[in-house]
Parts: sequence; structure tokens; C-alpha cells
Amino acid sequence: MTNQSHNPSESSVTVLGLGAMGQALAGAFLKAGHPTTIWNRTPNKGDDLVARGAVRTATAAEAVRASDLVIVCLYDYEASQAVLGPIAADLSGRVLVNLTSDTPERSREAAAWAAEHGVAYLDGAILVPVTVIGTPDALLFHSGPKSVYERHEGTLKALGGKTVYLGEDHGLAAVYDNALLDFFWTSMAGLVHAFALAGADGVKGADLAPYLSALLSIFPPAIESTAVEVDSGEYPGEQAPLATEAVNVDHIIHASAHRGLDVQALNGVKAVLDRAIAKGHGADGWTAVIEAIRTPEPQAQAR
Amino acid sequence: MTNQSHNPSESSVTVLGLGAMGQALAGAFLKAGHPTTIWNRTPNKGDDLVARGAVRTATAAEAVRASDLVIVCLYDYEASQAVLGPIAADLSGRVLVNLTSDTPERSREAAAWAAEHGVAYLDGAILVPVTVIGTPDALLFHSGPKSVYERHEGTLKALGGKTVYLGEDHGLAAVYDNALLDFFWTSMAGLVHAFALAGADGVKGADLAPYLSALLSIFPPAIESTAVEVDSGEYPGEQAPLATEAVNVDHIIHASAHRGLDVQALNGVKAVLDRAIAKGHGADGWTAVIEAIRTPEPQAQAR
Repeated sequence: MTNQSHNPSESSVTVLGLGAMGQALAGAFLKAGHPTTIWNRTPNKGDDLVARGAVRTATAAEAVRASDLVIVCLYDYEASQAVLGPIAADLSGRVLVNLTSDTPERSREAAAWAAEHGVAYLDGAILVPVTVIGTPDALLFHSGPKSVYERHEGTLKALGGKTVYLGEDHGLAAVYDNALLDFFWTSMAGLVHAFALAGADGVKGADLAPYLSALLSIFPPAIESTAVEVDSGEYPGEQAPLATEAVNVDHIIHASAHRGLDVQALNGVKAVLDRAIAKGHGADGWTAVIEAIRTPEPQAQAR
Repeated sequence: MTNQSHNPSESSVTVLGLGAMGQALAGAFLKAGHPTTIWNRTPNKGDDLVARGAVRTATAAEAVRASDLVIVCLYDYEASQAVLGPIAADLSGRVLVNLTSDTPERSREAAAWAAEHGVAYLDGAILVPVTVIGTPDALLFHSGPKSVYERHEGTLKALGGKTVYLGEDHGLAAVYDNALLDFFWTSMAGLVHAFALAGADGVKGADLAPYLSALLSIFPPAIESTAVEVDSGEYPGEQAPLATEAVNVDHIIHASAHRGLDVQALNGVKAVLDRAIAKGHGADGWTAVIEAIRTPEPQAQAR
């Protein structure tokens, strides 16, 4: 059985995995008018989607056979492989889009597995929270064969207005995803640490927040200049040499430790600063830390 | 000698320390019409300022005696104490504003020293680069006796349109400064790491930058909600539980280590996540990491 027609707005789609994100994906496909088949390992999920017209199947194999386009959104690639491995024959000849978040290596492994089994494969990454899925603001990355992406672009855009194709290398969606989350989660760790530091001296979060927000205006030009410096390998530091910034970071570490706060992440930041300075970048700008990031201490790299 | 009158726009001011920032401060005072006296330990600095009307003295004591308001901007509090210690008698009865960046403890020590020597003391912090000093966008914090601040507010506002008085506790300017820089430098470390991670797979900085900039729109609401959660001690995690975010951070660490990149800062972030989860916050939201930040592992806190 297949519901697929040549009108993309009517293309049927199957969603495997009905966690909060999987449910949002299926909901966005339904809203855009796509016949949608859903499946979840534990069968107690998706009642709302069924009420809105989704077809729920008892097995993943049945769900896969319902559509030419199969979307997977599970906990990680181990979980997705546990579901997909046994139904490779059912997937053969169809298009599999894996929106599970993991490393580029896992994406490339999954692509190799798909190729072995005659499955057309796109890897993807979702960069927005559940609540933003299906809106014009939703950013999603895809990578893999361009012809496969273009064939299903109309359907995939139901998930977000900012659906971006990055290139043929299946790992690219995860590369971009990992890099953006690297910046985001490191920043969010610094954010909570900042509240903890000020809070230790009685400053309320509500009193600090407006200044943290005001500070955000520095980031757009900082991102632009950092990109230029990374691409050129030149890190001008006249205005703010690394050696001076290292002193500032040291103050923050000392103030934090004095208040009994954790300083492991800050010590990690300081370590790359110190190594960049030891490599001769003390008079360069902040971006020069990339030289130390690229050449870790052997014992510091392993977990 | 004193040039001070009752018209704040004509109040004289002395600036000790003519690094890039000290020069910017003196320049802003001159531009606002304040008779300005300058001094630097090495006498080869400030020619431009002298050309614009500043009086340069041979000794710090002479410079201090020229104005009722004395601004200090040096490398750190050790450097500033080395300059101020020997001229305590000259400072007595005047107002000292220390804009040197250091920890709140150093600010409070400096305030105690000033009180012993009959010096009215304000501590301050500069939150913007040299080039922004003297503009409406320049953010500066001050803390110390309110009456002293209010007396010189008109003069101090020559340095920046966003000049803020935070409270009587002399340490507050440094507390806010340290907290903002904690967020800023940790984020900047994450930013460069993100470029390194994507760059390892051949992604140019220029290609990644637009998505990093787009990501910034998440921060204003994140700062607001984090502040509310910090103040309430409640960390709702329905949309994005800490246990799930920890998996994402683990992917980034694995992808980074696989590419031979430094992961010390990321490991520090992961360590507080893991400890927050071990404390029972796995179903809570990201802000719950503050519970682990406030209770470091003893061996992890020391440097």
C-alpha cells in the first residue's frame, strides 16, 4: 500500500518514534496535509495524532511500508539502529530521513548501512525546541544526496520554514548541529555560572538579567570577526590581547573558588588560554585560542 | 591647586594609568570639558592627550593634588596599590574611583584601605571596549557610598551613557563585572570551539557564522527564564530535561575528541551536568546545574 502521489502536498510520510519531538514532527506533517503513519516502540503514544487523522501501526515494518518517505526521530543512533536493523528489507527502495541527534560519525555509519540495504538516506538535525516545529522559524539541517533531498524538499519543509540543505556528505547536518550546540550549551553553562557567582553575593537573578541581555549585542559582531579570523588564521589583538583576557578569566576563577563554586569549566577555558599564550599568542586576540583547542594536552583530551 | 568648581561640567579630574583604557577615559573627560590631569608610571604615554589640553605630571602625587576626583585604571589591584600606597596622604580628603578590573574581594580590601586613610572611595568596572568609552552605549558600574557617587555622577557620566550605580557594598561593581564576564568569556570559548569543531570537517567559518548568529535569538528568553528559575529555585524540565541535554553534550565531546580537539571546558560542563543528574535533577531543566555549581567536588574546585 502507498498513499504517495505526485503532488508533494499529498505525499504520505511515516514517522518512527513518538517522543515529544517525534509527535511534533508528525503533527506538523498532518497540519500540512500529508497522510501520516506513526509508530512507537511503546504503543501508548500518539492518541492525539490518531484523533487528527494519523494512522498508527502495531509494527515498525507496517509503518515503513505505508510511505515512501520515512522519518526517524529517536533517542540516539543506537536506538534508531535497533529499530531499523530488523526492517532493512522493508526500507529498501524507500527514502529514510534520520532526524535523531548524534555525532557526524554515527550519521556516516548510518548512511553506509542504508547504502548496503538499498535505502536512499538523508541525515538531518533539528535545531529548535518542540514548540517551534512546523513554524516559519524552525531551523532544520539536511545532508546527503541532493537529488533525494530535492525530491522530498516540499514535504520536509512542513517541519520548518528554515529547512536547509548542507551538502552531499551525510555527516554535515550533525557537524553543523554539534558545532551550534557546542556554542549554545557552553554558553548556557556560563550563563548559569554567572547567576551562581552574582547570587553568592546576594545579587538576584532578576537584577543581573538585564545586563546579561544587554551584553548580547556584543555577540553578532564577535561571531562575524571570529569567523573571519578563523578562516584567515590571523588573530589581531591590539584592542584586547589574550594575555589581558587571561587575567580577567583568572579573576573570575578566583572569585568563584572563593565563593565555593565549581570552576571546572572555567579552568578548562583558562587552560586553552594559557596554552595559546605559551605558544606565543599572548599579544593576539581571543580567537587565537583555536590554536590550543586544535592541539590538546594528551592527558586532557581523554575523558 | 584645584580646578574644581560647582559646575560639574567644569569639575577637574585626574587619571592615573594611561594604558589603552586609561587614555580613553582621559580623552572622554577632555571631550566633556573637564580639566584633566594625567599620569603614567612610564612617562612616554599621553602625548595626544596633552595636545588636547591635558596636564601631564611627573609624579602620581602631583597628579592627585590637581583634582578632587581621582580615577585609577591599572592592570590589576596589585598594580594600583603599588601606585596609591605611597601617596595615601595626598589622596586623603579626595574621592578615589578605581576602575581597575579585579575580584570583589580586592575591591573591598581597597575600600578598607581608603577608609583608613580618609579617602572617599568608589569602586567601578568598565564593561565595554576602549573604542566605546565616552559614547551613549558605554556601560560602567559603580559601587560605594551613594552620596559620593551622586556628587560626582555628572563627571563620571562623561565616560559612558550607561553609567550605573549598584549599591553601597564596594564589591558590587566587581560582582556584576565578574558575573557578566563569566558568561561572556565562557561563551566566547564555546564560540571558538564551535568553529574548531566544524572546521575539522572542512566547514568554513563564514559558512557556520550565519547559523551561530541566528542561534542568538534563543538567548534573551533563556536569560529571562534562567533568572526566574534561579530566583525561585524551581527548574521545570518538561520540554528539555537535563538528562537529554547531557546526552547532547556527550555527543559534542565525543565528536570533538574524535577530531583531536581539546575538550577540557566541555568536560567541565559535562561534570556539573552529571553531578546535577546524580543529585536527582535529571528530569529538571538546564538551570538545575546551578545546584551542582554551588557544591563542587572538593578536588575539582582547587586549581
